[in-house]
Amino acid sequence: MDAYEELLERLKNIDLISQIGGLLGWDQEVLMPPKAAALRAEQLAWVSKTGHEATTDPRIGELLTELEAREDLNDVQSANVRLARDSYDKATKLPTEFVEEMAKHKSQSLISWQKARAEDDFSIFRDDLAKMVYLARQKADYLGYEELRYDALLDIYESGLTVSRVDPLFAGLRENVAPLVKAVVERGERPEMGFIENNSWSQSGQESLSQSVSEALGFDFAAGRRDASTHPFCGGPNPDDVRWTTRYSETDPFGSLYGSMHETGHGLYEQGRPRNLDFQPAGQANGLGVHESQSRLFENQVGRSREFCEWALPIWKENFPENMEGVSAEDLWRAVNLVEPSLIRTESDEATYNLHIMIRYEVEKKLIAGEIEVDDLPDVWDDMYEEFLGIRAPNRTLGVLQDIHWSMGAFGYFPTYTLGNLYAAQLLAKAREDLPDHDEQIRNGDFAPILDWMRSRVHARGSILEPAALIEEATGSPPSPDAFVEYLQDKVKRLYGLTA
Amino acid sequence: MDAYEELLERLKNIDLISQIGGLLGWDQEVLMPPKAAALRAEQLAWVSKTGHEATTDPRIGELLTELEAREDLNDVQSANVRLARDSYDKATKLPTEFVEEMAKHKSQSLISWQKARAEDDFSIFRDDLAKMVYLARQKADYLGYEELRYDALLDIYESGLTVSRVDPLFAGLRENVAPLVKAVVERGERPEMGFIENNSWSQSGQESLSQSVSEALGFDFAAGRRDASTHPFCGGPNPDDVRWTTRYSETDPFGSLYGSMHETGHGLYEQGRPRNLDFQPAGQANGLGVHESQSRLFENQVGRSREFCEWALPIWKENFPENMEGVSAEDLWRAVNLVEPSLIRTESDEATYNLHIMIRYEVEKKLIAGEIEVDDLPDVWDDMYEEFLGIRAPNRTLGVLQDIHWSMGAFGYFPTYTLGNLYAAQLLAKAREDLPDHDEQIRNGDFAPILDWMRSRVHARGSILEPAALIEEATGSPPSPDAFVEYLQDKVKRLYGLTA
Repeated sequence: MDAYEELLERLKNIDLISQIGGLLGWDQEVLMPPKAAALRAEQLAWVSKTGHEATTDPRIGELLTELEAREDLNDVQSANVRLARDSYDKATKLPTEFVEEMAKHKSQSLISWQKARAEDDFSIFRDDLAKMVYLARQKADYLGYEELRYDALLDIYESGLTVSRVDPLFAGLRENVAPLVKAVVERGERPEMGFIENNSWSQSGQESLSQSVSEALGFDFAAGRRDASTHPFCGGPNPDDVRWTTRYSETDPFGSLYGSMHETGHGLYEQGRPRNLDFQPAGQANGLGVHESQSRLFENQVGRSREFCEWALPIWKENFPENMEGVSAEDLWRAVNLVEPSLIRTESDEATYNLHIMIRYEVEKKLIAGEIEVDDLPDVWDDMYEEFLGIRAPNRTLGVLQDIHWSMGAFGYFPTYTLGNLYAAQLLAKAREDLPDHDEQIRNGDFAPILDWMRSRVHARGSILEPAALIEEATGSPPSPDAFVEYLQDKVKRLYGLTA
Repeated sequence: MDAYEELLERLKNIDLISQIGGLLGWDQEVLMPPKAAALRAEQLAWVSKTGHEATTDPRIGELLTELEAREDLNDVQSANVRLARDSYDKATKLPTEFVEEMAKHKSQSLISWQKARAEDDFSIFRDDLAKMVYLARQKADYLGYEELRYDALLDIYESGLTVSRVDPLFAGLRENVAPLVKAVVERGERPEMGFIENNSWSQSGQESLSQSVSEALGFDFAAGRRDASTHPFCGGPNPDDVRWTTRYSETDPFGSLYGSMHETGHGLYEQGRPRNLDFQPAGQANGLGVHESQSRLFENQVGRSREFCEWALPIWKENFPENMEGVSAEDLWRAVNLVEPSLIRTESDEATYNLHIMIRYEVEKKLIAGEIEVDDLPDVWDDMYEEFLGIRAPNRTLGVLQDIHWSMGAFGYFPTYTLGNLYAAQLLAKAREDLPDHDEQIRNGDFAPILDWMRSRVHARGSILEPAALIEEATGSPPSPDAFVEYLQDKVKRLYGLTA
């Protein structure tokens, strides 16, 4: 057998193992009975061990060396070799004992983080977090980097990402979005939220609304599912079986609808993957930033537009005739776009969200570099919130303890959230050039043109290109904060009649 | 590492693979989106291949040879060695090409069976069935047998089962149950079924009834689930995650309730397995016959008793107040025990069911032995239905084409259904000696004593003993049809006031 064919066969097995893990994980979050947790962990450990063994098989190293010397590979073949090399190196560079220590410490520090958060006491988490930072630095050293340790961690979640690429993006946000938020706050205007806050919202109505909107956006429910789970996510094994979840609150219908649109965006990306590249790394969705661009596009750029609210209003009224009586599209649009600095990232609005991320990015960068240490964290955190959002957490639970990520050792993950917002704006700005009637199409509920555009420029391109190159190919420019800043300035101006 | 420890470690991996396959299979039947079928088949094929490789690893053969020479093994250790040997031999005796040919032919003949059934034309299925019979004979030859080819096939589904053991059981049924059914038919009395047949039964009411009854019987829903599926089954990965299904018809509430009790019986067995033997073959539920004894016990021996109907009546009335108005426990009891010869096995009653199985057993025995051939099947089938049930199928769909089993090559499977009925009766007869208040307990909805009895005598014993030895240990006698015949005669006498 040809070396490339042999590599593909091995990659197919690795992908099947990961598909199976995807189903086990989905089931665990969505409907597994509670007592099954311990044995499910055994199953997942077996899947993970088997996947690791398949990924690090020395034969893959031999095949890659052979293929890397060849000059007759086409784009897709080269991408498969590059991506397989990346996984192989990442998996083989970490010693088994280190991986096991990390996994063990993850379980432990997850527990101490939960306890610290529940008791609002950072000191409970302190030692485990310190060890996690130590392990993250070690991990970066194993993986290797050119300039900064933190670069090695960024690269895990979006291939090729470095501080020197992220810094200018956040600088653009800091210079433009922070003053914008400040201006909104100073103006002190709040849209009319009474129709939301003074009503009760039935789960069945929210389910029906989410389903209608997701179907209209183009999610194929013959190749996927909608379910409920505590932590909303989009998972499932493969493009024919994409499963997203949302959660319902009777006091806040926006959480489930915009959560559904967010996960639908992820799901549309998965369903749009190039199917001639099934089981190949080049056929996978691209890095986390690009993935997040698709979820943010449908959640925010589409979903919080004035035109979308016009289209969606009748569906709202159909599902909640009493609550929505007398509410106009304008009212709905203002309500879904409430800009209000708040302490909790996951509850924050479109404008302030990226400031939450920027703070985490700056903190992580310094922490991994050793410029600050774990004991400095709580105050550094609070000071930055005061500086950029004008608010200070009254306790640690609402401050530095709010996110799960660090307890899992996921340093370098946060920036991909903001990348997603920037990419989404940049992609939409470009798409508008090809789709001059975009706004009118959204107003008519005709989401096919924008989805088709994303399908051909982003989804169908899989991971053939590196993320930044994909954005550049699709939009003609490298990743930049400009489109997002412009989008947000324009929106805030329309909403609040002001500019920064 | 000690050879026994090494064997256990390998068996644990094999069990985990099978647990994962169990979840994939459950998901496929219950909630997988339709387009996911092709890739799910790839996942299942990978699981099956990986499980086969782990099972047939030559190192297992070496370990078994070493362990079989040792004389210091206790009961559980010996059982693990015996069961691992059985799986190893069964898996290694079949050549890979044969297994693949069988799998391929299975897919093909499943399709031609479906077509033949839909078009009521046996000739469409004839060639594929003939080849399946040929393959089944070949399989028996590969597996080996002492007396009859058919013995090798029986042994697949219940270890140690042979024609010389099954023949006397069916003889007992033929001599006693067939005349009983004939007597009922001649009497021509039919219980009042109007309250069932003239009402519509909501799915939500049936779901609530099924759930209440399953909970009352002792099924632990923190370690399992109830769902709906086209073909009811009990599956899921392990004793902490037991998932059973039922189906709902608005014209027949008995289907879902007694289906639920049947699957609950299977589920209770799984939840009662000896947990100190997790991942070990000795800790698995015993052969299919014993498994079926637990489902039949709760479905029939408990569920169709007069006392159960007395206890359940208020729950029926709570869920279906209008339909059940004026219905007494006596009415309900008579309705759930309707004895009526019919053509379709899966819809048949407790008395005639085993005659359906007996016919299949006799037919399979002759077919595998070459005493009859595929072309004889349709008429042999109809003649036997006429002889033992007094009815003749008007077409092939209601006759020889009704069951899926032969299209899948599952010859030797049917008898385990009847074994289950016989074991259930024999176990309950013995349990009554220890539980003199059994009937009163059922009337009060106190199902714990009978469940506890089964837990300690059957469930907790796992597969430490061979099935027949387990029945003998639990009841003091080898498997026999006597208890079942006596139970049925007594019941029919009470229902119809007659004896055979």
